[in-house]
Amino acid sequence: MAKGKKSALKENEGISQSEITNAASIKNIKKKRNAKINPKTLVAAILKKDITALSRAITLVESTNADHFPIAHSIIKQCLPHANNSIRIGITGVPGVGKSTFIETFGKHLTARGKRVAVLAIDPSSSLTKGSILGDKTRMDALVKDENAYIRPSASGKSLGGVARKTRESIILCEAAGFDVIIIETVGVGQSETTVHSMVDFFLLLKLAGAGDELQGIKRGIIEMADTIAINKADGDNLKQAKIAKVEFNRALHLYPQKASNWQPKVMLCSALKNEGIDDIWKLVLEYIETTTKNHYFDKKRKEQNKFWLIQTIEDQLKSEFFNRPDIKKELATQLHLIDNNKTTPFAAAYYLLNLTH
Amino acid sequence: MAKGKKSALKENEGISQSEITNAASIKNIKKKRNAKINPKTLVAAILKKDITALSRAITLVESTNADHFPIAHSIIKQCLPHANNSIRIGITGVPGVGKSTFIETFGKHLTARGKRVAVLAIDPSSSLTKGSILGDKTRMDALVKDENAYIRPSASGKSLGGVARKTRESIILCEAAGFDVIIIETVGVGQSETTVHSMVDFFLLLKLAGAGDELQGIKRGIIEMADTIAINKADGDNLKQAKIAKVEFNRALHLYPQKASNWQPKVMLCSALKNEGIDDIWKLVLEYIETTTKNHYFDKKRKEQNKFWLIQTIEDQLKSEFFNRPDIKKELATQLHLIDNNKTTPFAAAYYLLNLTH
Repeated sequence: MAKGKKSALKENEGISQSEITNAASIKNIKKKRNAKINPKTLVAAILKKDITALSRAITLVESTNADHFPIAHSIIKQCLPHANNSIRIGITGVPGVGKSTFIETFGKHLTARGKRVAVLAIDPSSSLTKGSILGDKTRMDALVKDENAYIRPSASGKSLGGVARKTRESIILCEAAGFDVIIIETVGVGQSETTVHSMVDFFLLLKLAGAGDELQGIKRGIIEMADTIAINKADGDNLKQAKIAKVEFNRALHLYPQKASNWQPKVMLCSALKNEGIDDIWKLVLEYIETTTKNHYFDKKRKEQNKFWLIQTIEDQLKSEFFNRPDIKKELATQLHLIDNNKTTPFAAAYYLLNLTH
Repeated sequence: MAKGKKSALKENEGISQSEITNAASIKNIKKKRNAKINPKTLVAAILKKDITALSRAITLVESTNADHFPIAHSIIKQCLPHANNSIRIGITGVPGVGKSTFIETFGKHLTARGKRVAVLAIDPSSSLTKGSILGDKTRMDALVKDENAYIRPSASGKSLGGVARKTRESIILCEAAGFDVIIIETVGVGQSETTVHSMVDFFLLLKLAGAGDELQGIKRGIIEMADTIAINKADGDNLKQAKIAKVEFNRALHLYPQKASNWQPKVMLCSALKNEGIDDIWKLVLEYIETTTKNHYFDKKRKEQNKFWLIQTIEDQLKSEFFNRPDIKKELATQLHLIDNNKTTPFAAAYYLLNLTH
């Protein structure tokens, strides 16, 4: 009876679970649930373009439950031979630039041409604010209802590195599920553009004309990463301003040295709301893919991205292991204090910390 | 006799030394030499502005002989309370911009005003080419002969990190020896500007007018780091071009957001050869120091630089330890091959490598 009471309390009122609660039976249920996941069956379904299976696999990839890690790895490994065959497009722009409307119009444009389109998102802030960029799916109403489109809200995670890993592995799953175009969306702030840039083939920067917005991107090097800049909302009264902005961006782009891709970035005008200029942007993407496939940059870039992610993951892990050690946390503060008071140098302090045994 | 023969061979023909050569006696000589180094005596001499003692201490800091590490550390530690009281100026610019002439004229200008000036260099390439920037001291003939100036050629080292550590510790020694202005020179290529920027108070970028040179710095973010841009060789036929370049740079600088220092970077014209505009640049440095001291940015920046170097040194060391492990070197190549052939993901490969036991 006492056991039952505790269990009921837990379920109904959310009081934290006691150690002696029916942990064994919960474990048992979880075991059974996991046992039901057969990676082979799931992969077979993904390859048959089963969206429910794809969603389930992405959930496993995103899971923080250690029991799911080997299952997720097994699924990804089996999907790998069927991956790598999509066009990966990164789209960024500050809030208000009209990203959702653009992705909706752009996505519909592609599905109307027989393409299957997946939309993923990188939004490191979503784990804090719980407000994912793509959380509000209603903003992409038409695309959500399109059976040739798949929209997945941003993975949450403590670190950008963690979110990035999940997104990169989701790309593989989407490709195995036969999606031809994968769009990775990110908000135009912080480090997330660099992260997205390092996992896509083509990087599109959305901009607005006027309001001093034209050159703000230079600071963060985002303009340098862009393969195309699209000035959105270039309609009605905005059109004149947008044309001026186009000239300015073109001038700015020509200040940068030739890209390794041999691709000269373009500036385009569009209005996602009025479906104007969207086809030109898609043609530009195709032109880019053709150019970089011919000059072998496309494959080279993907290989470099893989290497980058390998090294990045190792370095992140080494740092995180070191700086999360309780002794390092404590001694780091002490050493910083000593440095601030000229009692030691940064180098002596570093070697002191590195030589602490744990 | 055999012993003597071997020793002679070694000295005269440079044949590699046999294991049984008089290693013991060499060790003995070295021991005696090290025994002669009394950190306390050396520090006392440095504080009395003894240049020979300063040079000897810098040599110890630069030494790769492990026996010297504790001695060097002891010297630096004793010098620390007497350090931190100079103005640290970073100077960069592409080869041909006239760095040596500028430093000579600028240095003489300061010594004429009663300042003591030390010139150090960061040149990671010098370890490869053996051609240090400051190696050819004859280019700074007047400054070399000036008893209130001290010129130290670039430290050599395998890595930029190693060279940077040596230079940063040499700054402390120079400050303890009473130098008021420390100039850190670097060539305008690669990562060395960022390294120099992270150890100086004021960052000066030397430029030439014309020849498409005006905006080449944007690419590497060097212009963004500059507290002042000086267009050198602004004399004779060059003057008109230089004035145009000044306008262009000023426009470029205004595109960047306000600096954390609240300092608006300036563009100056100068001719180091004709000693024109040099005093204005020095006045600008003083104005910068005054502004940033008042708004506490000066101290804040030095503290941040210390923290940066602490974290940087730790991270460099963690990475170098990991990637230099023979098992990792071997397995990394294998994993990269598997990734290129879609047999594994960068993340799976990373975790495989991280979990190798050694």
